[in-house]
Amino acid sequence: MKIAQFIQDGRLGLGLVEEGGLAPLDFAGDMLDFIAGDRTAARKTGRPIPLGQVRLAPPVTRPGKIIGIGLNYRDHAEEQNAKIPAEPRLFAKFATTLIGPGDPIVWERAVTGQVDFEAELAVVIGRAVKNCPEDQALAAVFGYACANDVSARDIQLAKGELVRGKSLDTFCPLGPWIVTTDEIPDPGALTVRCRLNGALMQEGTTAMLIFGIPALVAFLSRSFTLLPGDVILTGTPKGVGVFRNPPVFLKDGDEVVVEVERIGRLVNTCRAA
Amino acid sequence: MKIAQFIQDGRLGLGLVEEGGLAPLDFAGDMLDFIAGDRTAARKTGRPIPLGQVRLAPPVTRPGKIIGIGLNYRDHAEEQNAKIPAEPRLFAKFATTLIGPGDPIVWERAVTGQVDFEAELAVVIGRAVKNCPEDQALAAVFGYACANDVSARDIQLAKGELVRGKSLDTFCPLGPWIVTTDEIPDPGALTVRCRLNGALMQEGTTAMLIFGIPALVAFLSRSFTLLPGDVILTGTPKGVGVFRNPPVFLKDGDEVVVEVERIGRLVNTCRAA
Repeated sequence: MKIAQFIQDGRLGLGLVEEGGLAPLDFAGDMLDFIAGDRTAARKTGRPIPLGQVRLAPPVTRPGKIIGIGLNYRDHAEEQNAKIPAEPRLFAKFATTLIGPGDPIVWERAVTGQVDFEAELAVVIGRAVKNCPEDQALAAVFGYACANDVSARDIQLAKGELVRGKSLDTFCPLGPWIVTTDEIPDPGALTVRCRLNGALMQEGTTAMLIFGIPALVAFLSRSFTLLPGDVILTGTPKGVGVFRNPPVFLKDGDEVVVEVERIGRLVNTCRAA
Repeated sequence: MKIAQFIQDGRLGLGLVEEGGLAPLDFAGDMLDFIAGDRTAARKTGRPIPLGQVRLAPPVTRPGKIIGIGLNYRDHAEEQNAKIPAEPRLFAKFATTLIGPGDPIVWERAVTGQVDFEAELAVVIGRAVKNCPEDQALAAVFGYACANDVSARDIQLAKGELVRGKSLDTFCPLGPWIVTTDEIPDPGALTVRCRLNGALMQEGTTAMLIFGIPALVAFLSRSFTLLPGDVILTGTPKGVGVFRNPPVFLKDGDEVVVEVERIGRLVNTCRAA
């Protein structure tokens, strides 16, 4: 299924994305409750709402963690002359970074002048796991979404403040919905693209991941418990703005689109204040 | 007031810490709900339970973020020959690190062999703030607790994986309770100590903070929204194990105590598996 969070009368609701639009579910709770709890009783209610009339939220709004993986595509490591990592390298984004499809990516020019895009496949964890064997890792996944790991490069690189540079408010567009694992038997063969104002900036495939999804889940779960709703951003392919010559940074009014095969398109615009 | 979370019949409860022990509150919700919601109706119920008979939980169990501040005591920066930072340096600990008073700090020897202690004053945020002026920062604080920013130095330093080295499960003892701001008019004048098996290892005062609490809240809130229940670990004074000669690391069976003046003592034992 494709399952989304949407905003109706100022409250979060859950809905299934179908041909005719979004079919609301009569489920009391948000996506975290849905993933972690008993969802067998959730039924569609009323008629599907055309997607154009729905305001989608990020499909997870209060994850326990958002784990970013650095340097996980060989060509992205090469474009910055970085060594191919021997183990996954990770950082955190705070949950206050999350925004949904159509929401603006916002920053103040006094805080950062180098805002960059990173198209990624996001993994949403489905059940609590610690020390998860690699061959059981996909069973711990609830589903997948598109993510934009927006990064303030001046804070991240020049200041060396990785978590802060990755964690400005609005710097994690996520969505447009979660596609559950049953619809994506092989998450290791999905095309990932980023388009900036229509121009193709990144194109890769998760087949190029240095550490694939089972390896990431297994590795991370050796350090800490992964919980339902936790989000793993699996890394970005070559083509980000900062390593281009000349560099390209996001500007006020830009439209940035992350596309992941079998999942959908995540569209956000930029607002520099 | 001193307010704690405790575990009763497998569920979290809230209680006030008084002379006679812990007085349970008839409040439906956890500390996050208490901080963020309407708490005027919460009343004490029944008789106080002697503290020795109560199993305390960490006073916040699902914070949106745990923000660690690095190099925030001059003597701790000096003991590692690090430059005094011009701006606060921050990292993240995942919420799965949280444990309460008396809970064991647990690690696997296959994951880390260099577990270290860091006694800290923890700040718990009371209301949502963004771009908070320094002179209004303390009004955004709910209260204070003791914290131990337990760190796997081999992962943090040798591997350069700051977030992972700080985020192993059980690596954030927090407690024993929160003391609200009305009882601590000046959080910039509190003695912070760490004792390992009874021996004094760290002793500092928050008067030595390079960035005091109002400066930290103001600075952090320029990058992201601080929310009720968010935790800031304000840094640790000189004396951590890794920079001693010879280095001292935590061992199976060790008892580590963090004391913060006016707040209390946070006691945890170590278990290396």
